[in-house]
Amino acid sequence: MFWKMYNEDNIFGDITTENIIPKDMDIKAKIIAKEECILAGIDYIVENLKKLDIETKGRKDGEFANKGDTILILTGSARTILRAERTVLNILGRMSGIATETKKIVEKVRKINPEVRIACTRKTLWGYLDKRAVEIGGGDTHRWNLGDMVLIKDNHIKLAGLEEAIRRAKKVSFTKKIEVEVESEKDAIKAAKMGVDIIMFDNMTPDEVCRIAEKLGKYNILLEVSGNINPGNVIDYAKCSIDIISMGYLTHSSRAINFSLEVDFR
Amino acid sequence: MFWKMYNEDNIFGDITTENIIPKDMDIKAKIIAKEECILAGIDYIVENLKKLDIETKGRKDGEFANKGDTILILTGSARTILRAERTVLNILGRMSGIATETKKIVEKVRKINPEVRIACTRKTLWGYLDKRAVEIGGGDTHRWNLGDMVLIKDNHIKLAGLEEAIRRAKKVSFTKKIEVEVESEKDAIKAAKMGVDIIMFDNMTPDEVCRIAEKLGKYNILLEVSGNINPGNVIDYAKCSIDIISMGYLTHSSRAINFSLEVDFR
Amino acid sequence: MFWKMYNEDNIFGDITTENIIPKDMDIKAKIIAKEECILAGIDYIVENLKKLDIETKGRKDGEFANKGDTILILTGSARTILRAERTVLNILGRMSGIATETKKIVEKVRKINPEVRIACTRKTLWGYLDKRAVEIGGGDTHRWNLGDMVLIKDNHIKLAGLEEAIRRAKKVSFTKKIEVEVESEKDAIKAAKMGVDIIMFDNMTPDEVCRIAEKLGKYNILLEVSGNINPGNVIDYAKCSIDIISMGYLTHSSRAINFSLEVDFR
Amino acid sequence: MFWKMYNEDNIFGDITTENIIPKDMDIKAKIIAKEECILAGIDYIVENLKKLDIETKGRKDGEFANKGDTILILTGSARTILRAERTVLNILGRMSGIATETKKIVEKVRKINPEVRIACTRKTLWGYLDKRAVEIGGGDTHRWNLGDMVLIKDNHIKLAGLEEAIRRAKKVSFTKKIEVEVESEKDAIKAAKMGVDIIMFDNMTPDEVCRIAEKLGKYNILLEVSGNINPGNVIDYAKCSIDIISMGYLTHSSRAINFSLEVDFR
Amino acid sequence: MFWKMYNEDNIFGDITTENIIPKDMDIKAKIIAKEECILAGIDYIVENLKKLDIETKGRKDGEFANKGDTILILTGSARTILRAERTVLNILGRMSGIATETKKIVEKVRKINPEVRIACTRKTLWGYLDKRAVEIGGGDTHRWNLGDMVLIKDNHIKLAGLEEAIRRAKKVSFTKKIEVEVESEKDAIKAAKMGVDIIMFDNMTPDEVCRIAEKLGKYNILLEVSGNINPGNVIDYAKCSIDIISMGYLTHSSRAINFSLEVDFR
Amino acid sequence: MFWKMYNEDNIFGDITTENIIPKDMDIKAKIIAKEECILAGIDYIVENLKKLDIETKGRKDGEFANKGDTILILTGSARTILRAERTVLNILGRMSGIATETKKIVEKVRKINPEVRIACTRKTLWGYLDKRAVEIGGGDTHRWNLGDMVLIKDNHIKLAGLEEAIRRAKKVSFTKKIEVEVESEKDAIKAAKMGVDIIMFDNMTPDEVCRIAEKLGKYNILLEVSGNINPGNVIDYAKCSIDIISMGYLTHSSRAINFSLEVDFR
Repeated sequence: MFWKMYNEDNIFGDITTENIIPKDMDIKAKIIAKEECILAGIDYIVENLKKLDIETKGRKDGEFANKGDTILILTGSARTILRAERTVLNILGRMSGIATETKKIVEKVRKINPEVRIACTRKTLWGYLDKRAVEIGGGDTHRWNLGDMVLIKDNHIKLAGLEEAIRRAKKVSFTKKIEVEVESEKDAIKAAKMGVDIIMFDNMTPDEVCRIAEKLGKYNILLEVSGNINPGNVIDYAKCSIDIISMGYLTHSSRAINFSLEVDFR
Repeated sequence: MFWKMYNEDNIFGDITTENIIPKDMDIKAKIIAKEECILAGIDYIVENLKKLDIETKGRKDGEFANKGDTILILTGSARTILRAERTVLNILGRMSGIATETKKIVEKVRKINPEVRIACTRKTLWGYLDKRAVEIGGGDTHRWNLGDMVLIKDNHIKLAGLEEAIRRAKKVSFTKKIEVEVESEKDAIKAAKMGVDIIMFDNMTPDEVCRIAEKLGKYNILLEVSGNINPGNVIDYAKCSIDIISMGYLTHSSRAINFSLEVDFR
Repeated sequence: MFWKMYNEDNIFGDITTENIIPKDMDIKAKIIAKEECILAGIDYIVENLKKLDIETKGRKDGEFANKGDTILILTGSARTILRAERTVLNILGRMSGIATETKKIVEKVRKINPEVRIACTRKTLWGYLDKRAVEIGGGDTHRWNLGDMVLIKDNHIKLAGLEEAIRRAKKVSFTKKIEVEVESEKDAIKAAKMGVDIIMFDNMTPDEVCRIAEKLGKYNILLEVSGNINPGNVIDYAKCSIDIISMGYLTHSSRAINFSLEVDFR
Repeated sequence: MFWKMYNEDNIFGDITTENIIPKDMDIKAKIIAKEECILAGIDYIVENLKKLDIETKGRKDGEFANKGDTILILTGSARTILRAERTVLNILGRMSGIATETKKIVEKVRKINPEVRIACTRKTLWGYLDKRAVEIGGGDTHRWNLGDMVLIKDNHIKLAGLEEAIRRAKKVSFTKKIEVEVESEKDAIKAAKMGVDIIMFDNMTPDEVCRIAEKLGKYNILLEVSGNINPGNVIDYAKCSIDIISMGYLTHSSRAINFSLEVDFR
Repeated sequence: MFWKMYNEDNIFGDITTENIIPKDMDIKAKIIAKEECILAGIDYIVENLKKLDIETKGRKDGEFANKGDTILILTGSARTILRAERTVLNILGRMSGIATETKKIVEKVRKINPEVRIACTRKTLWGYLDKRAVEIGGGDTHRWNLGDMVLIKDNHIKLAGLEEAIRRAKKVSFTKKIEVEVESEKDAIKAAKMGVDIIMFDNMTPDEVCRIAEKLGKYNILLEVSGNINPGNVIDYAKCSIDIISMGYLTHSSRAINFSLEVDFR
Repeated sequence: MFWKMYNEDNIFGDITTENIIPKDMDIKAKIIAKEECILAGIDYIVENLKKLDIETKGRKDGEFANKGDTILILTGSARTILRAERTVLNILGRMSGIATETKKIVEKVRKINPEVRIACTRKTLWGYLDKRAVEIGGGDTHRWNLGDMVLIKDNHIKLAGLEEAIRRAKKVSFTKKIEVEVESEKDAIKAAKMGVDIIMFDNMTPDEVCRIAEKLGKYNILLEVSGNINPGNVIDYAKCSIDIISMGYLTHSSRAINFSLEVDFR
């Protein structure tokens, strides 16, 4: 994402900076958090700025920042820093936004159910970086791609039938887990008996989830809930005997954290 | 973005679909809007699905959709449709989210100031697609990249001085406009006298903006306001004699619209 | 691989064919198996020849071919067919070589232990195509890459210790299985008790494997054997109560099957 | 090949190593030859490991290694070394396998015919690296691609006729040699009289080759034999007055040499 | 262009240099101007040679060189320098050719009309590098691409009509200038009244241009002339009250400056 | 080159055309030669326009065109044709320029020496397309890259000595020719005796060339002259008994032919 953005921005040069700032001017610049947050994206930014010969010093991914904190100091070519400014701030803003929201939910939920994992989904905008931000916030990345794990969803079941779908899925390499999305107790039990590794309850009420989860206790299977879960209702689900709560919310609708970059002469 | 997402998802195959769904099964699938919105991203999706041999029929970019509307029907290989599902929904959700929010603000603001343009910034997550969604919602794309226009910002001024920065900028090709960001009336007048094309008021109150804008009326220069403008305060700025209001808000913090895909046998 | 090879071959043109064969000459060409084999690579070849506007008709992946069988007929531009000849034959030769060897071993082993899987390793030359050929021959692909599954190997254990390595591995996403490579009964039992999903016996004799496998029966864990297993000793391992036998042999040292291409005027 | 393999392996990270091995742990690791061989691929490996910041010290391409020899010592990040392990060993194994086999044949043949060249063909799996390994083993690379030299083969002759094919080939740039594949004495003489640079005898018996080669002695043309030549029959061909023996065998069916990597704390 | 050329040249190695020059031989080499010129391309060359570990010392872009001047000294691997020789000389030759010709015209024209800009067009062979050479010679780059500025040309007008075309163009983002190509005084006045930013006179005689330019003086619009302008007639146009003279001639038909590279042992 | 140019032009869209021309408007457009020429680049253009869904009808590469001739008619989307206009004309202009100049020289020279070949060098701007244009004009492409043939030049000789350089070069694959650049009769004879395939006279006068060429007649070696040969002196060299005259002039300093594109409503 860094290079995609940086290159798009600079593909025909930065005509402002090239005309105004001398080629050999070196500066120092500070990145400042304009609001409280969990920092995410710094390691990624630092690694890429290095390739642009910009040195950095500052905070680390996962740390808490207060409003007004200087979180990173950049030194190097003025032209390069100004060219990279927007790329850097866009990445920090989004990743810290996701990490901050994830952390908040993880902490709230862990008070009720200390073992439960908060996972994101594939409803990401940036793929890898979004998932990395969820991890930094204490969440679970879930599947990175469609080759990671078998996940039999409603559409697969509609086309093949639940039992037949599970039977076919068992041909997959032994290295992969098999998960099934169910919408009823009956199907949940059926899937459990057929030996799947994980069952996902999709779009069920907390009451239903708690009830069925209890019945599945004896099967030694991981249980996941998903579907329209948000900061408002996540606690209700966390009370059930489940292992994973997955929330598309974390990545498809998160708000960016506001950062700014200020230059000084070196 | 389509191919980046689609390829990341399918780089090691879709092991669920490949094991469960026969290679030659063809299906029909509907995409349904789960909430009211302005549709955006359909043209882009349709064009790319065509390359995957999926035929489509349905609504167009810029149209209004009600909750529950079927907005696109896909026909073709079941495997391909399931592999592309997440990519398609992620794009529609984000782009329609941006277009819907942009449209809402444009309509609100035009009642007060029929000529003003609502522009996004470079605080995008997806670059081109985000800007395209703003356009579909009736907004202005602003600069696509750093070679589009000279935009002298606070950091440039800090390093070179306002007047010197403008002087240097004038060396740029005659094909480019020159814009300057100012934080005071004095600087605004100075820039206007030096013959820039556009002046941007950054982080000023509506009152300041209105006052200075009036004084600049005689210079035949475009005026832009920017900085922490959101749906709550945009109307206050719209009242001034300005030409452009730019809002990072449109792209860095917009919420996705919820769509779902449901399959039928053909 | 098709395009890498085809493009390397043709990067500065095929100066023989371009000087000798007219641009608009169309021909028919036959691909002939020069020895008995299980066919693999045909689907992949056909799909890519289509992009070069070469039509094909013939056999399918996984079918058995006798010496002398015409397995595919190509029709289209003479120049294109001659340019693609070597690429096509190289792919068919290698993939059919792997599939044929895999099939032979799978069939031999299944007579002794009907449930055991024969898997390849990451000792491949072509990655995806090698693994696909193993699948066509009835084998299991094992991990495609280092993100597919946790596999704690001797070097990880040396650096972190067995128990600590397993503990750390448990932080991984719930979507992933965890496998541990062990070299003694004691370690096998320890890993089983810590709840890993799969145990791999590395470089053990068949007797050791059979003995330890029996003791692990009660843990409901998958068991894999690996390390210098070849057609000569695979039967001895297959007699144990194990689930997977993995053989680098299938892909790092397999012999190509001989195919030839003969042209006719159309 | 290094980066194709390394990137495929690590595209979604190495989840084992990332969870178990600390980011800043440095180690030393030894690569050990598990059997006698001519080393090939070391220079290529070393050059690429350098880009990953891994320092190396050890043997050179073309040297002989005994079973048990440490052929390369790697120092650097534990994570990086473990991530690159399979890529490194796959390359060394294949290239050394080809070089070892080539050397063996070259030495055997040179005793009979000190000037003859052993060449590979385009029946490679890895293109460049395979050809490089043949060179390291003392062989000739033959054509790298279809633009290297004109080589009129049976299929060209079938479509254009022998004499017409040669005539057309002469339009090629003066920088290129022209070779013709023949299947009879008559055609060999015809081609020689028309002034080609090289004649290839395809699929002939050693007796035929020796007989025709003698008759062509006066034409000052290079002579090549090809087609199903293997370690068993190569000597019979080497006795004839020929210049090149080409063997697809060297690259399409060679066995990998076994290497292993063992880590130490630095 | 550097890497495209260098990689094309070296894709299958430099078989001359690899066979003749030892791998570890270091040399010094001089680049010599064989004719008077304005140097262009040196900065670009130096930056890329650095990536090949070749150190350089010498002149700068924009400087004047006499026949026989050593303009750059290269030190480093003999093999690398010889492999890069042609790429380096091709780039220097073309860019310096363009810069030299541009400079000559700019100086001639400025004597008559000190404010006029000499611009190139999109009739380039190398895009970026050609435009860069024009800049070094003191010219204006004009549009880099079709997204830089609205430029309504004869074909647009033919399809949409002059006034309608201008009206539609005004929907474009406020960041872009609008230029119109006209072929008559009437159209020029019409466009000026509709508020375009720039008017281009295409294929008019100097007399017509001077006459119309005078009439447009009061509109505060930039005026450009274009179409078959060459060193022979440029002065005639420069006499008019215009702002820009654009010449395809600068890039589509410029002659290369002759440079040579000579090696020394270090 | 087509896609490099087309994509650079359209990377941020064609804002003129997109705002003025309706998406679904289809047109017909004519390309007209504005001066006499040998056409080159048409086949390449037609093949690429097809990928943009533009149909074409017209003349072929190698044909002669009069001033004013319509050489190609394009039909399809107005937007696409206007977006591709500059790319198409730039390619036709350059390639026809090279082909026209090459043809002129070939015809002049063949009257004196019917067998001599006019070759270009690696002093190209566009690599492949430049060489293709030379071929269309009846010239020889010479080496495409540094792996095509051994060409021992002055710098190689300076570093290794003439005889040692030739000896080392003989290690190269038998598929490659060996050429040596010489600057004296003595060296020419020495190289001939060592059995090289081609000798190049560099920067010699016609008299010297004729004299030495005669002495080399008995060696059955190809002879090439090179170095500052231009339309003015080429005839003097053509009189000698040589096989190839190579001219950097053909590609580094050729003038573009002028073409224009005119649209009609379909």
